[in-house]
Amino acid sequence: MSGSGMPQRVNICECWARDGLQGEDQFIPTEKKITIINRMVDIGFKRIEATSFAHPKLIPQFSDSLEVLKAIKRPPDVTFIAIIPNDKGLDRLLEACHQGYGVQEITAILSASEDHLLANLERTFEEALPPLADLVKRARQAGIKVIGCIGTAFGCPLVGEVPLGKIIELTDWYLDKGATSIMLGDTTGEANPRQVREVFSRMKDRFPGVDFIAHFHDTRGMGLANTLAALQEGIVLHDSSFGGMGGQPATRRPKYHKGFAGNACTEDMVLMMEEMGIQTGLDIEEVIDTGLLAEEFCGRNLLGHVTRSGAVRHRSSRPLSLQELRLNGEIAPALLFVGKVKEKLSGQALVGYVIREALAKTWPVPESLRISAERIFPKAEVGGRDILVTKFKVLAIEKSKGEAVLEMLSQKANGDVFMEGQIKLIFLK
Amino acid sequence: MSGSGMPQRVNICECWARDGLQGEDQFIPTEKKITIINRMVDIGFKRIEATSFAHPKLIPQFSDSLEVLKAIKRPPDVTFIAIIPNDKGLDRLLEACHQGYGVQEITAILSASEDHLLANLERTFEEALPPLADLVKRARQAGIKVIGCIGTAFGCPLVGEVPLGKIIELTDWYLDKGATSIMLGDTTGEANPRQVREVFSRMKDRFPGVDFIAHFHDTRGMGLANTLAALQEGIVLHDSSFGGMGGQPATRRPKYHKGFAGNACTEDMVLMMEEMGIQTGLDIEEVIDTGLLAEEFCGRNLLGHVTRSGAVRHRSSRPLSLQELRLNGEIAPALLFVGKVKEKLSGQALVGYVIREALAKTWPVPESLRISAERIFPKAEVGGRDILVTKFKVLAIEKSKGEAVLEMLSQKANGDVFMEGQIKLIFLK
Repeated sequence: MSGSGMPQRVNICECWARDGLQGEDQFIPTEKKITIINRMVDIGFKRIEATSFAHPKLIPQFSDSLEVLKAIKRPPDVTFIAIIPNDKGLDRLLEACHQGYGVQEITAILSASEDHLLANLERTFEEALPPLADLVKRARQAGIKVIGCIGTAFGCPLVGEVPLGKIIELTDWYLDKGATSIMLGDTTGEANPRQVREVFSRMKDRFPGVDFIAHFHDTRGMGLANTLAALQEGIVLHDSSFGGMGGQPATRRPKYHKGFAGNACTEDMVLMMEEMGIQTGLDIEEVIDTGLLAEEFCGRNLLGHVTRSGAVRHRSSRPLSLQELRLNGEIAPALLFVGKVKEKLSGQALVGYVIREALAKTWPVPESLRISAERIFPKAEVGGRDILVTKFKVLAIEKSKGEAVLEMLSQKANGDVFMEGQIKLIFLK
Repeated sequence: MSGSGMPQRVNICECWARDGLQGEDQFIPTEKKITIINRMVDIGFKRIEATSFAHPKLIPQFSDSLEVLKAIKRPPDVTFIAIIPNDKGLDRLLEACHQGYGVQEITAILSASEDHLLANLERTFEEALPPLADLVKRARQAGIKVIGCIGTAFGCPLVGEVPLGKIIELTDWYLDKGATSIMLGDTTGEANPRQVREVFSRMKDRFPGVDFIAHFHDTRGMGLANTLAALQEGIVLHDSSFGGMGGQPATRRPKYHKGFAGNACTEDMVLMMEEMGIQTGLDIEEVIDTGLLAEEFCGRNLLGHVTRSGAVRHRSSRPLSLQELRLNGEIAPALLFVGKVKEKLSGQALVGYVIREALAKTWPVPESLRISAERIFPKAEVGGRDILVTKFKVLAIEKSKGEAVLEMLSQKANGDVFMEGQIKLIFLK
């Protein structure tokens, strides 16, 4: 294993709008797809898999692919990507390109396993390669980059192990036809970290200078461990999906694998990388917000851990601001030693002290912050041995007024409620 | 980072019966705890955290600790472990030891963060250390090994970062008092893989020859990635819990963190290690079975991925046997090229061929297996271009007769049902 060292900076391709939604039974309304993609753009994703040009009858989820591409924001530094399964899909995309709402990259699809290719595209290698060569050529002639995707690269649920020689052969083939990067897809979550290191190490040795994309699924819970292994081999391009969504095509076809997780989860991946000091160019709080919005649009809790736990909060040292507060967000609890409270504090002075100190455990609290908590009173005496655990939940944010309303609960270590109620934070300008 | 190389063999401590159940609101009946622990013993766990001697009023889940210890199997090569929070707990344990149903190891508890120590045990370091030193001494005098647990070793939800110096100081303290191993606990899932490598690397350099235990929580989805990092630093002793259960004490105390996951998940951890060629001494199918039993006892789906996806099946090459079949288990689907079927096959011969070939995609099928499928008929013609995806589900197992009943569904690639119904497998002796 070469262990070429971890990158300092990565580029995560957000795949929710394509691979994430591909296995979703319910149709996500077009405007909601657009909203999420625009949020991805706003918060700093530079690679976004926006849609698929699969036949609308085969995957109805993508019947709105042109509408989506027409409506999304398009800053020049963001690369949009679409999956193109065949010539007809490419025709539709090129028409969109001519009208100014195409994509800069497409993904061409192959599987390392012929059985999987048959199950997925109903083609043998012999049948699949010639038209795919034409597709890559036509795309390149139109100035579109091509990701050569090799699915089931780490194992196939239908035939088992996939020889590395096949991955090398298909990579050679793709590069020869004009592909600009190579995606190794762990389509059904069969990879393990040792294998990931070995495969990427050998592929990088064999194809120096080629951009490899790591595309993992979390079917067996190893999405992040495999991402770590890919990072350790110096991989810069990573795929993920909000809420760990994703899976097989939502077609009538029989499913060939099972498991409750899809793609490696964006929120968790971003946190892991940022915590490791690897720059993603993304803000974890904004990523969590977008993940929560995706949950809202899907109508259920998804599989992100960080959406529930919150980031590792103490790494952040930004001052408390209205912008930092998220509606319904819980502010990580703070523990206070009451022994430190000056004895003369009582009544509202004690209330104010507890609130301010508890907030300050999470953020530097600005001098100008005013706290209004008129209807809160201590419910019990406190002494030197008492410990208070205090939590807040954000109930309302009024940006125009510079105010936020928080629900507060302050308990003694034994669980007894010390004080509770609503407080208002007023951010003076 | 030393990167001392991954171990060839690890020793996983199964913590479900203690750390796993600690945060469980419902009381799991004593006989069910005993059943699971006995299964752990049967399937090969050599380290089992069996119970806690926390005060029964504080954590009612462990009010049956003595009954559990009295009833479980005790092969000589299995180490049972109990957590002992204080002297009274040790008194109860020593009494049990005298009567022949104690444990060989106890876990003594500290936190690297004093705030967490206060929240968890309501003690400062100054208050906690002297009685803990006595506790370690008494246990050692009674011939019991002591794990020195350092909680919040990778960060504390209440105060933030924890200096490595504190972990070194507490490790020195524990070793001086007689602890026989040191557990670094990521109590609320704050660790990241880079930090894990750095901490373990430096601790192993500082304390050569000391046995360190990696204890991760999956709060932020990094349980397995952190386990991988610990493996890369040569850590042999790992903690995990079935279904990723675990969390904070189920006491009246205010919770000081949130998230939906608990300990790193046993089923997923075993699969990752075995797939990487690291011996756990465990059989993944038996581990999954036990995880499913834990789910049944808890009355809900837990967080194991592998319990739903199944193992990476093609790594297994054991012949099909009655023992391999799990009730309600699904046999991973197999894909057949009908083009390979001899044209003269039709009717029952075709049915038999499809079933046998599909089973053979997962296992070597023994010569002596007889397949009975009298009431199944092909529903459609098949030609050279047709692909069949065939799945099985185990409905019944009659070990005395050597028979199993399976539900079969065979579909064409477009989703049309080709044949379906129940088949019987008869394993002739």
